[in-house]
Amino acid sequence: MVTTTTGMSENRSEISNLGEFGLIDRISKKFNLQNATSIKGIGDDAAVIDTGDDYLLVSTDVLAESIHFDLAYTPLQHLGYKAVSVNVSDIAAMNGKAEQIVISLAISNRFSVEAVDALYDGIRAACEHYQVDLVGGDTTSSRAGLMISITALGRVKKDKVVYRDGAKPNDIICVTGDLGAAFMGLQVLEREKEVFQADPNMQPSLEKYEYIVGRQLRSMARTDIIFELEELGVKPTSMIDISDGLASELFHICKNSNVGIRIYEDKVPVDQMTFNTAALEFKIDPITAALNGGEDYELLFTISQADFEKVKNHADIHMIGYVHEKTNERVMITKQGNVVSLQAQGWNHFSS
Amino acid sequence: MVTTTTGMSENRSEISNLGEFGLIDRISKKFNLQNATSIKGIGDDAAVIDTGDDYLLVSTDVLAESIHFDLAYTPLQHLGYKAVSVNVSDIAAMNGKAEQIVISLAISNRFSVEAVDALYDGIRAACEHYQVDLVGGDTTSSRAGLMISITALGRVKKDKVVYRDGAKPNDIICVTGDLGAAFMGLQVLEREKEVFQADPNMQPSLEKYEYIVGRQLRSMARTDIIFELEELGVKPTSMIDISDGLASELFHICKNSNVGIRIYEDKVPVDQMTFNTAALEFKIDPITAALNGGEDYELLFTISQADFEKVKNHADIHMIGYVHEKTNERVMITKQGNVVSLQAQGWNHFSS
Repeated sequence: MVTTTTGMSENRSEISNLGEFGLIDRISKKFNLQNATSIKGIGDDAAVIDTGDDYLLVSTDVLAESIHFDLAYTPLQHLGYKAVSVNVSDIAAMNGKAEQIVISLAISNRFSVEAVDALYDGIRAACEHYQVDLVGGDTTSSRAGLMISITALGRVKKDKVVYRDGAKPNDIICVTGDLGAAFMGLQVLEREKEVFQADPNMQPSLEKYEYIVGRQLRSMARTDIIFELEELGVKPTSMIDISDGLASELFHICKNSNVGIRIYEDKVPVDQMTFNTAALEFKIDPITAALNGGEDYELLFTISQADFEKVKNHADIHMIGYVHEKTNERVMITKQGNVVSLQAQGWNHFSS
Repeated sequence: MVTTTTGMSENRSEISNLGEFGLIDRISKKFNLQNATSIKGIGDDAAVIDTGDDYLLVSTDVLAESIHFDLAYTPLQHLGYKAVSVNVSDIAAMNGKAEQIVISLAISNRFSVEAVDALYDGIRAACEHYQVDLVGGDTTSSRAGLMISITALGRVKKDKVVYRDGAKPNDIICVTGDLGAAFMGLQVLEREKEVFQADPNMQPSLEKYEYIVGRQLRSMARTDIIFELEELGVKPTSMIDISDGLASELFHICKNSNVGIRIYEDKVPVDQMTFNTAALEFKIDPITAALNGGEDYELLFTISQADFEKVKNHADIHMIGYVHEKTNERVMITKQGNVVSLQAQGWNHFSS
């Protein structure tokens, strides 16, 4: 047969050794931008395309069964909603507003038409909430599980676009909402699944975990914050959405802006239920859930000191530290006053 | 556990009974366009977005292992090239030029870094050929096979966009290149795979099938035709790319333009190798391969009679019939002069 390279060749390097970010770096080095309309390619939350008056923002995210979601506890409506949210969140992280999406769906025969309806009910609810139009897609059968790939298109005025690379020393580091909840919700769902598998007569008791389970299953993009920052007259100097955990996203800001950061443990917002579930039930340090737990889809951004007064009274924006001129300064001051180095775990889907 | 609808519920309808087009119709009925910038949603080769001076075109296509390609005979470089071509072809079918792509890739651990490199080598070669920029993407692990979803962004002047719905009675139906070759190439590859599986010492003899196998493995989008039509001063009245077979695409034109069509068997371009391989080796009527074989990625378009002179001497544009005012007229005049009804098979990936 035609010789193919499906990974069975002599020189074999494992993707898991590179990780997702290593793989992206390797790929992006091979590609140059040829068109004048391509303003920003790989390397931020969304690509930036010049359309004349405005910038068009383009982001794409894929959710794969058994990797990103487990249908044992993920209702398809929620999954559809989440698939839209994660892309809208990427557009928000560029200070833009999503306006259109296209969807590629791969789905196996074990799914019924009713299941597809449920998925699209969630997608439609999200489209209505975010005022986004579904304008196209492709649907195919799949020999394996369900896979949803969404590409979102957004807009931003050219002078309003915010990248990861604009953080300056002494800028204030802000995060929205609270962190670690989606991760702890996932721990609860995984535990209840195990209980159920061991004894199908056991009914799960998720009521008391409603907030954190909701944060895992019903992801929301913080489009409200983009609107409010505009109202306050604040343009962040850098921004990213928190999909892989606070530490990982902080490191992206550091790397892209060529700066360091200092954050304060007691300033990192953690909800009481997240805290209790982590500390008391799972014996996980709550700050670890906030730093390394993913999928909160809150916004992390930096603002100049001059904007401090405009933001300081916002109930849902939390100042957690500041940008440091030393690029190797990536530290957290603990509640006890100790200075610890941050570790960015992020998520390596390719590890076994 | 949380109750989910993975298709195991009481009211179960099979996706295979709806088919891909039925599923798309069902989904698109549920969605309305909310944004003024959304000019055209689901239902053409690409969505159309207003960006001020021009229209932005957006198309998305997913290629799934075991459904769209078989890695036993598909080199990864070719697969990467094809994944770009099929999207660029959709943009061309709107009379536009693709400028950017984003890629979602789901890939299992059985693929090495070298395999990913090979795939991206093909993607890069296509990007260079079509002058398209890779501006973003997402890569994830997959429990199953390889899946590539590409979204292409293109541009067209507002007065140059061509939809499926503009064909008028008496317009001339044109197709580019030749048809059925990719389908016959696939038959050869499948046959050789069977021979190889029966006896791994048997070497495949593909040399004599180079053209048709190449048409299957190295798909090309007809961006040259878009350029040449512009040079000739011809704007088609309707256009679509031939991905599912000529008959299926003709039916899309009929349905969207509310017209009928008459084509002539002896005018449908079929390459000699396609003809011989179909008729002599596989005992398939060559016109069947042209009408119902997919993946040629040629362009099917209609032009007004006034443009006949401009196009008649083009070596690679073939006039195969004309548009009829009767919407139920969907016929082919055979070489023997018989009038036969066309059947659009297309491809139902969901059938078992």
